[in-house]
Amino acid sequence: MRLKILITIAMMAGPALAYEPLVEKREFTLKNFVTRGGRTVPEMRLGYETYGTLNDAKDNAILIPHYFSGNSHAAGKYKEADVSAGYWDAIIGSGKPVDTDKYFVVSVDTPVNLGANDPNVITTGPATTNPKTGKPWGMDFPIMTIGDFVDTQKGLMEQLGIGKWHAVMGASMGGLQSYEWAARYPDKLERVIPVISSGWADANLIAWLDVWASPIKLDPNWNGGDYYTGQAPNAGLAQAMKTLTLQANSAEWTDGTFGRDWASEGADPGQSWANDYKVVTKLNEAGAARVAQSDANHFLYLARANQLFVAGQPKDSLYKGLLNIDVPVMLIYTDEDLIFPGDAVRGTGTIIKSDGTPVEFVELEGTRGHMDGLLSIAQAGERIRAFLEAK
Amino acid sequence: MRLKILITIAMMAGPALAYEPLVEKREFTLKNFVTRGGRTVPEMRLGYETYGTLNDAKDNAILIPHYFSGNSHAAGKYKEADVSAGYWDAIIGSGKPVDTDKYFVVSVDTPVNLGANDPNVITTGPATTNPKTGKPWGMDFPIMTIGDFVDTQKGLMEQLGIGKWHAVMGASMGGLQSYEWAARYPDKLERVIPVISSGWADANLIAWLDVWASPIKLDPNWNGGDYYTGQAPNAGLAQAMKTLTLQANSAEWTDGTFGRDWASEGADPGQSWANDYKVVTKLNEAGAARVAQSDANHFLYLARANQLFVAGQPKDSLYKGLLNIDVPVMLIYTDEDLIFPGDAVRGTGTIIKSDGTPVEFVELEGTRGHMDGLLSIAQAGERIRAFLEAK
Repeated sequence: MRLKILITIAMMAGPALAYEPLVEKREFTLKNFVTRGGRTVPEMRLGYETYGTLNDAKDNAILIPHYFSGNSHAAGKYKEADVSAGYWDAIIGSGKPVDTDKYFVVSVDTPVNLGANDPNVITTGPATTNPKTGKPWGMDFPIMTIGDFVDTQKGLMEQLGIGKWHAVMGASMGGLQSYEWAARYPDKLERVIPVISSGWADANLIAWLDVWASPIKLDPNWNGGDYYTGQAPNAGLAQAMKTLTLQANSAEWTDGTFGRDWASEGADPGQSWANDYKVVTKLNEAGAARVAQSDANHFLYLARANQLFVAGQPKDSLYKGLLNIDVPVMLIYTDEDLIFPGDAVRGTGTIIKSDGTPVEFVELEGTRGHMDGLLSIAQAGERIRAFLEAK
Repeated sequence: MRLKILITIAMMAGPALAYEPLVEKREFTLKNFVTRGGRTVPEMRLGYETYGTLNDAKDNAILIPHYFSGNSHAAGKYKEADVSAGYWDAIIGSGKPVDTDKYFVVSVDTPVNLGANDPNVITTGPATTNPKTGKPWGMDFPIMTIGDFVDTQKGLMEQLGIGKWHAVMGASMGGLQSYEWAARYPDKLERVIPVISSGWADANLIAWLDVWASPIKLDPNWNGGDYYTGQAPNAGLAQAMKTLTLQANSAEWTDGTFGRDWASEGADPGQSWANDYKVVTKLNEAGAARVAQSDANHFLYLARANQLFVAGQPKDSLYKGLLNIDVPVMLIYTDEDLIFPGDAVRGTGTIIKSDGTPVEFVELEGTRGHMDGLLSIAQAGERIRAFLEAK
């Protein structure tokens, strides 16, 4: 059960309250997608989900990009029997703050999505066959940026005939994409809600992303990223997922949940290397549980995309992109966050509002650290509702 | 130079101010050392250094156990030409707070010391030859606890004819040993100064120690700890040292020092996997620089010893050992510490003083996080002096 708490994101909405009707994964393709780095992906196939109905004016659409280890399943269920609903189901649905009676919500799988082997994810990345070689791209796949993710969403926007998003909102890496939308395409959205995220990756975040990713390259099965005909670097990937899981929670929660309990009664970690603490075995299990549906190279690409992030991708300044943001901004954060600390979020907001752009701050209270941006988002529900409805 | 800042601990004392005279590494041996886990090490050989002179009454001795990646070189230089002095040289010496004109300072290498291949370290651990097999112990070496480290120091104390320490003081893992002395042998010391450390390893610390250590086991050269006739798991060990280095500093310092600089001018990490950020390459270099003199199995043993730590090692309570402390306590800490956070230190002090034991708190100000317990210890110098002199 504790493992479930660790790895299941959206337990808060009971089955009866989940967004209805049942959700379907859709798919779109962008031909000859050119990255901001100047490389071309001949066929960019990606998944998306929608909740609610696009109105005739096509001005009621809200975009939700997803977090690092997430995908476009933001609300609802695929089947009645699904144990849990999408990760932000608590705020998306009929009568909920992101009210699907009013809004048409679009949630999109990113390129290089971690869940390359998840049947509910459609993505294009190193694990995808390169049409030129007939083999998986591996590390020859173009390095992607948060800006590239946003540009794929712009491609979908055009296919759907939407000229402007009513709002863009997302958590963590989804928040980075939200900043990027507002900084790069300020006339393509009405407002933006970056959640548990800040305006650029600082040295500390760059270094931790590297710490997360490094075990993959240490795993001999990684083989320079060329493992698709052999054993995948699952041990390294599990370790990467484990570190991410630990850092995405708070020390308070880790201590409160596990204390100094041993993994097995009577099996003292002081007596044998075969014994361990419960917190370690549960984190190991949480990491290992994600491996089968995930791809190690995709993890490396995601880590790099996050390291590269500066809102708007200006070449010469951390601030220019943020100053380019002119739409109203709501920043949702928590001070217990070890990945995007409250200070970094407040600092970002201070820059944005320095030229008069309205910025609202909403602080989440909780014990889960970064994860509260997913688990406790309902706390900000009425603030989000009002922000979306404001003229 | 930045690499030097990362890996060199004691830059603060200029050469002219270092403890004098030149320091010598000494050695002692404990025959048939029995661990608290009930196993026997036939020959426990360890190094130590002393500063100052033991008086006739043998009541002026101060013990300094060392931190995780440190050794007994706490003050002075081995040769005039040494670039830096011992790590706490700023407070140890003639006229300094730990005044070697008054006190006889003893600093001891722990068993399973990380620097098994450092010519200035004398230690016994998995890299040592097991007299029974004629081969290195490897992972058959007994699991060690902080209590075992303290018991080796008690062995030295007896050899030196010292009945009671005037004080025990140490940083980080040296602070854990200090708590352990006071909790387990309350009649063997007059006062105690645990620095940047708390009274037990909580789940969060247990998990992070595991994250530090895990890359070693992922390195195929680790081979279950049996690598002494082949290639050592240096890549895994370097990664372990790198993560420790990052977490021992503060986000503020990491950001301020490296920002988003690239490792090489013109080598954009967005363009090639061969390129990286400076913070990453500098941390990699800092980790790699420690590898040649360190042993990977020793790292694993140190991590486990820290995970196992509860002051006094009571079986049934986190508090009993701390309540056993009856001598005056000075706790030195910083709120920027990511390894032993200020809250954990204050919580420890609250328990100790709950039964009337005097506890003084000294907060360090700095930008280096945990490292300030080494780098900024001089800030607490006059408080330490007064605490040592109090009747």
